[in-house]
Amino acid sequence: MRILLLGFGNVGRAFCELVRNKSGVLKSSYGIDCRFVGIATRSRGCVSDPEGIRIQDLLERDSSTGRLDPGTAGSAALSAGDMVSGMDYDLLVVCTSTTIKSPEVPTAYIKGALERGIGVITSNKGPLFLACRELMDLANRKNTHFFFEAAVMGGTPFFSFARHCLTGSKILSCEGVMNTTSNYILDLMVTGSSFDDALLDARRKGFAEADPTFDVEGWDSAVKGAIIAQVLMGAAPVALESINVQGITQVSLGFLMEAVRSGGAVRLITRVEAEGDSVSISVRPEVLPAANPLSRVHGATNGVLFLTDTLGEVFVAGGGIGPRHTAYSMLRDLIETVELINAKK
Amino acid sequence: MRILLLGFGNVGRAFCELVRNKSGVLKSSYGIDCRFVGIATRSRGCVSDPEGIRIQDLLERDSSTGRLDPGTAGSAALSAGDMVSGMDYDLLVVCTSTTIKSPEVPTAYIKGALERGIGVITSNKGPLFLACRELMDLANRKNTHFFFEAAVMGGTPFFSFARHCLTGSKILSCEGVMNTTSNYILDLMVTGSSFDDALLDARRKGFAEADPTFDVEGWDSAVKGAIIAQVLMGAAPVALESINVQGITQVSLGFLMEAVRSGGAVRLITRVEAEGDSVSISVRPEVLPAANPLSRVHGATNGVLFLTDTLGEVFVAGGGIGPRHTAYSMLRDLIETVELINAKK
Repeated sequence: MRILLLGFGNVGRAFCELVRNKSGVLKSSYGIDCRFVGIATRSRGCVSDPEGIRIQDLLERDSSTGRLDPGTAGSAALSAGDMVSGMDYDLLVVCTSTTIKSPEVPTAYIKGALERGIGVITSNKGPLFLACRELMDLANRKNTHFFFEAAVMGGTPFFSFARHCLTGSKILSCEGVMNTTSNYILDLMVTGSSFDDALLDARRKGFAEADPTFDVEGWDSAVKGAIIAQVLMGAAPVALESINVQGITQVSLGFLMEAVRSGGAVRLITRVEAEGDSVSISVRPEVLPAANPLSRVHGATNGVLFLTDTLGEVFVAGGGIGPRHTAYSMLRDLIETVELINAKK
Repeated sequence: MRILLLGFGNVGRAFCELVRNKSGVLKSSYGIDCRFVGIATRSRGCVSDPEGIRIQDLLERDSSTGRLDPGTAGSAALSAGDMVSGMDYDLLVVCTSTTIKSPEVPTAYIKGALERGIGVITSNKGPLFLACRELMDLANRKNTHFFFEAAVMGGTPFFSFARHCLTGSKILSCEGVMNTTSNYILDLMVTGSSFDDALLDARRKGFAEADPTFDVEGWDSAVKGAIIAQVLMGAAPVALESINVQGITQVSLGFLMEAVRSGGAVRLITRVEAEGDSVSISVRPEVLPAANPLSRVHGATNGVLFLTDTLGEVFVAGGGIGPRHTAYSMLRDLIETVELINAKK
């Protein structure tokens, strides 16, 4: 399994480390032997080696900020685009950071690999928001695979759950706590913090981006809702502005405390609902009663409640977020890809 | 897909109905066309028809109590054993009722089909408790498939979740609310019911067996724990008496209320833990704090908290139990079986 990796930030590095740490079980349980033949970054250089980059060297030297210096790890390479279209590899792993406003570049890389019949795994939400169904259809036509478990709630099995655990069910709706930054802030505000102090704390703990607008104003949740609508309910891509979005910036302490006093909680809920032939997507802070399991999704965690025609309500929640969880979701996709390839042999 | 069905009680009937209701999506999404070629019961007769039993006829006439009268639905057949070993079929579906004390007969049926290279799906826990790993290994050797999602918490994806959503992870422990009868009773007792009144109510609602000892004394939970230990952690089968089991019959109202006052709840917890090379299984009522998601698994529902080396804690809960949920879990297994067979073609 020759891997071409796009992106070598926190997630890319965590993925390399996880693949290394799990090499024993990958080999013994799944017959998988991974080799990174190329690593490309947008502005920090590219490394390649058809025999396998010496990842350990890179991990020890590269601090995820400075230039990706090949050193003794491999050879300097030209560019991500050239590597995607020209190199020999079996799997493209995309873990560049998401830019919802210009997802064209990573989308082109994904298309490039799929067109060549090469499987793709991505943690980048941008291409999914733009053209998830199109990419899935392309993978199908090319008899290859396209997975993206890591892109939405990296620490909570979601797409694999819908695909494998709810097989043959109709998913009527899907609502969830999908933005950890907002959830962490709401929990802190209940303890008496102001919004600004809570945001500062979230930043210090690494739960919030330098520009948290996208998270706290609900746009990140909306993007996830729009991707879910495409994948689970066959909806078309939509413009972000067309989604009914309300973030947590206007949530008052009084509103929060009222929910807590009744045993429940205010959560920022992303809701995706099939309504006849159309699909509605909304994001807003809601007062949830104690009986709603989403009211118990606390801090920097995620949870999703599915409503299905076969099992009624089914709930899944993941305890963590962060590069290591995202990396695991990509590893899960990698194993499924290999199993599907092997099944065809 | 020619199905031989063993058992035509509530679950067997619900399975037939679900297969019929889902025939459209089974065909269009998975290319599956199901035909029941045989239905066998232990004491109420057997029906067969290589061209497909007219299920609708049977469902309308058979009340799940009287004799399984072939009428115009098919021909009377000899016995389950003869059908398993002699008929032509592609999948054996076992939904006879579980008898933990004498699981040898259904186990022999399952072995009989697997030995012939025919896939098996079971909702009957008995053969799993007795010899789950042995049956899984047999299926592997015969290049066929053996699934049992319906056998443990039929309304909550469990084995499929561990297999597909936690692939490549090490499951360090697994604890859950796995017995709905006990959980329903505990919830009623909190509202002031005595144990006996709560049990009576559970019986009236169909949540408790005529003899509820197995449920309320924790043995049903222990059986599930022992199966989970075999499947997820490679443990050997154990004698029921060797498991550390405490049921809910001695739980006092004071104990329950104390937990509620602190915001939590008392739940009957099945815990399976890997400890070095061995696996420990225990069942007992525990006071859970509000932060533990299992404290929020209420009434006749199930929930499981996995601790993994990759994602930390992951929680799954199902909202319902009953024949329709069990039937769905068997349908899920059926689809996976067909997909695996097709992948090999």
